[in-house]
Amino acid sequence: MSKEELRMHWEDSFDHKYVKLKKWLIDGMTNGQFRFGDRLPSENMLCRKFDLSRQTVRRALDELEKEGAIKKVRGSGTFVNRVFAQPQRTSSVGILSTVLYEYIFPTIMFGAENILTSAGYGIEFGITYNKVENEANFLKRMLEINPMGLIIEGSKTNLPAMNVDLFREIQRKGIPVVFIHNQYAELSDIPCIIMDDVGSAFALTELLIQNGHKKIAGIFKFDDVQGKYRYAGYGKALRAHKIPIVDEHVIWFDSYEWLGKEMNWVFEEIAECTAIVCYNDQVCIKVLAEMKRRGLSVPTDISVVSIDDTNLIANLEVGITSAVHPKEIIGEVAAKTLIKMIEDNTVGNKSYSKVMPVEIVVRQSIANRKKMEKHHE
Amino acid sequence: MSKEELRMHWEDSFDHKYVKLKKWLIDGMTNGQFRFGDRLPSENMLCRKFDLSRQTVRRALDELEKEGAIKKVRGSGTFVNRVFAQPQRTSSVGILSTVLYEYIFPTIMFGAENILTSAGYGIEFGITYNKVENEANFLKRMLEINPMGLIIEGSKTNLPAMNVDLFREIQRKGIPVVFIHNQYAELSDIPCIIMDDVGSAFALTELLIQNGHKKIAGIFKFDDVQGKYRYAGYGKALRAHKIPIVDEHVIWFDSYEWLGKEMNWVFEEIAECTAIVCYNDQVCIKVLAEMKRRGLSVPTDISVVSIDDTNLIANLEVGITSAVHPKEIIGEVAAKTLIKMIEDNTVGNKSYSKVMPVEIVVRQSIANRKKMEKHHE
Repeated sequence: MSKEELRMHWEDSFDHKYVKLKKWLIDGMTNGQFRFGDRLPSENMLCRKFDLSRQTVRRALDELEKEGAIKKVRGSGTFVNRVFAQPQRTSSVGILSTVLYEYIFPTIMFGAENILTSAGYGIEFGITYNKVENEANFLKRMLEINPMGLIIEGSKTNLPAMNVDLFREIQRKGIPVVFIHNQYAELSDIPCIIMDDVGSAFALTELLIQNGHKKIAGIFKFDDVQGKYRYAGYGKALRAHKIPIVDEHVIWFDSYEWLGKEMNWVFEEIAECTAIVCYNDQVCIKVLAEMKRRGLSVPTDISVVSIDDTNLIANLEVGITSAVHPKEIIGEVAAKTLIKMIEDNTVGNKSYSKVMPVEIVVRQSIANRKKMEKHHE
Repeated sequence: MSKEELRMHWEDSFDHKYVKLKKWLIDGMTNGQFRFGDRLPSENMLCRKFDLSRQTVRRALDELEKEGAIKKVRGSGTFVNRVFAQPQRTSSVGILSTVLYEYIFPTIMFGAENILTSAGYGIEFGITYNKVENEANFLKRMLEINPMGLIIEGSKTNLPAMNVDLFREIQRKGIPVVFIHNQYAELSDIPCIIMDDVGSAFALTELLIQNGHKKIAGIFKFDDVQGKYRYAGYGKALRAHKIPIVDEHVIWFDSYEWLGKEMNWVFEEIAECTAIVCYNDQVCIKVLAEMKRRGLSVPTDISVVSIDDTNLIANLEVGITSAVHPKEIIGEVAAKTLIKMIEDNTVGNKSYSKVMPVEIVVRQSIANRKKMEKHHE
């Protein structure tokens, strides 16, 4: 269309010129020509392009700004300020997790899947095995298929994030993302559904202290940020009761090592401890196996607490006092939050985040050392 | 002194009443009665205590506020806003480091000691062996002897800080602190003198990439924050050249493990790599020993780069291309910064921090794979 034709077109129809300009801009924002965060053509350019008066252009932009669709930034220009639905988008949601068929993950996925399929979404699954390389590949695939939203369990979230650019590109395309379990420090604006890792470890450690334990070991995973938070909760409880942190009593493992970590070495290090806080049930069953090998029993010789409360530890003779991971609920809440963000037409912000409350199941794995000491007197 | 006596005393002397109140407040702030951050008695209390008019009290407080000694916070009260010299303070400076007589530390200490003793300060040394428990004990000792300032190398700075309360107590006593090498995330307001860890690892990794390397392993320490930053620099260089991060090529160790880490296992993991970025020279000599055991040579079989540039790697047959740790200079700059803070009568802020520029020494440990590939064609 030549400038002359355009002009005639604009003058012909019944709408006011500024309404037509508004429609043209909204069309551009919904068909992907102008995306969230893009700079719009300047007032001058719009005046020239459509042969409109500055007053008409201003009126269109002012109304769009009042409606929240665009934002004027003094000295910089006018920017698209809302994510408009992309018509070519699939109706799928992408879910990326460490594993799918092991440990707590089937239950979490069941929770998310239920909600999403009821709402009519298809699901694209991805598995990282906690590798940033696999995360990168999944995100690239998602950028191609353009899903309605993503639920992501981060990989090695306690290390500097290596895929920040990919996440930002996904946001620029207007695709909302919800993290579950953990989050990269560099992406702290993205909503996150987590259990209270600090609070859970704090509550378990405090329970041990209340039962007279002072030499308490902790075994934590360092490359996932949950490990950092659970250690923080453990340390917070010790400090609250003026019990010094003993570095040798804190054992760290990472995604590769935890299967190979020599439990024999661990028990030599923490020989003087009367209790152990386990990062999760996978660590807990290794601790219990080593105790059995050494002829030690729970809780008479060593008290043991754990986090996640899975069926790995459910059927033991001596029940393990645990902090509950709200598995299915986390999946459901993540799915509902994502659907809300899709409906709100936003890539979201921290206000969509949720922290699940601490829940401790007390069983028989903590010995009361106060009673034991009295007994010995 | 009774209220009547006080009143007479105040009326007798030649000074204006508000000047006397100012002097009384300044006395309290210098003798430790009112410390930095403490709330002063309210206007009402001061009026009643010395039987002064509100106008007189306001004038004294207004002048002190103009002079920067106190700060009024609407709705909260008036607070001491300056650190006044504590007359009972020793003329010592405390220095806490991981070790004293090994690796880079004697040189750093030499730099700091020179500056501090020339300026007339005594030095109280402490060693942590990178244990937070030892750090806590040192800080408690410092709270008793009340030094002029502290130079601290943090312990396990990549983990949640366990001694935040002790550091804050030290600041409340008006004792300035300078960190060297690293810093806890929770204490990021405290000045810090560091080398450019991100930049150093970035430069070394980029050098390898420019020489045609694509499969580059990295061995990093996870409990010190330098490990996080050096990994970030390594990852940044790979991303800048669109080389994917391969999780198996990144090896992590911690303060306890690094001596025990099975180098044999490490080399199985990174078998396909043509180059290795070493966290520091202590790691580098272990890598070189394992290469020797396997009959591999530098750089023909594997290129090796390292960080710190100590005499551990200085006298090797094949010189190792390294990022320089500005050892003595870091010590000197830390000491000078601390002296400046003492003179400025401040516990400091981020503006006293310094990052040393990147310095790479190129030796013979990087093979040019581009040439090698051409040769094979």
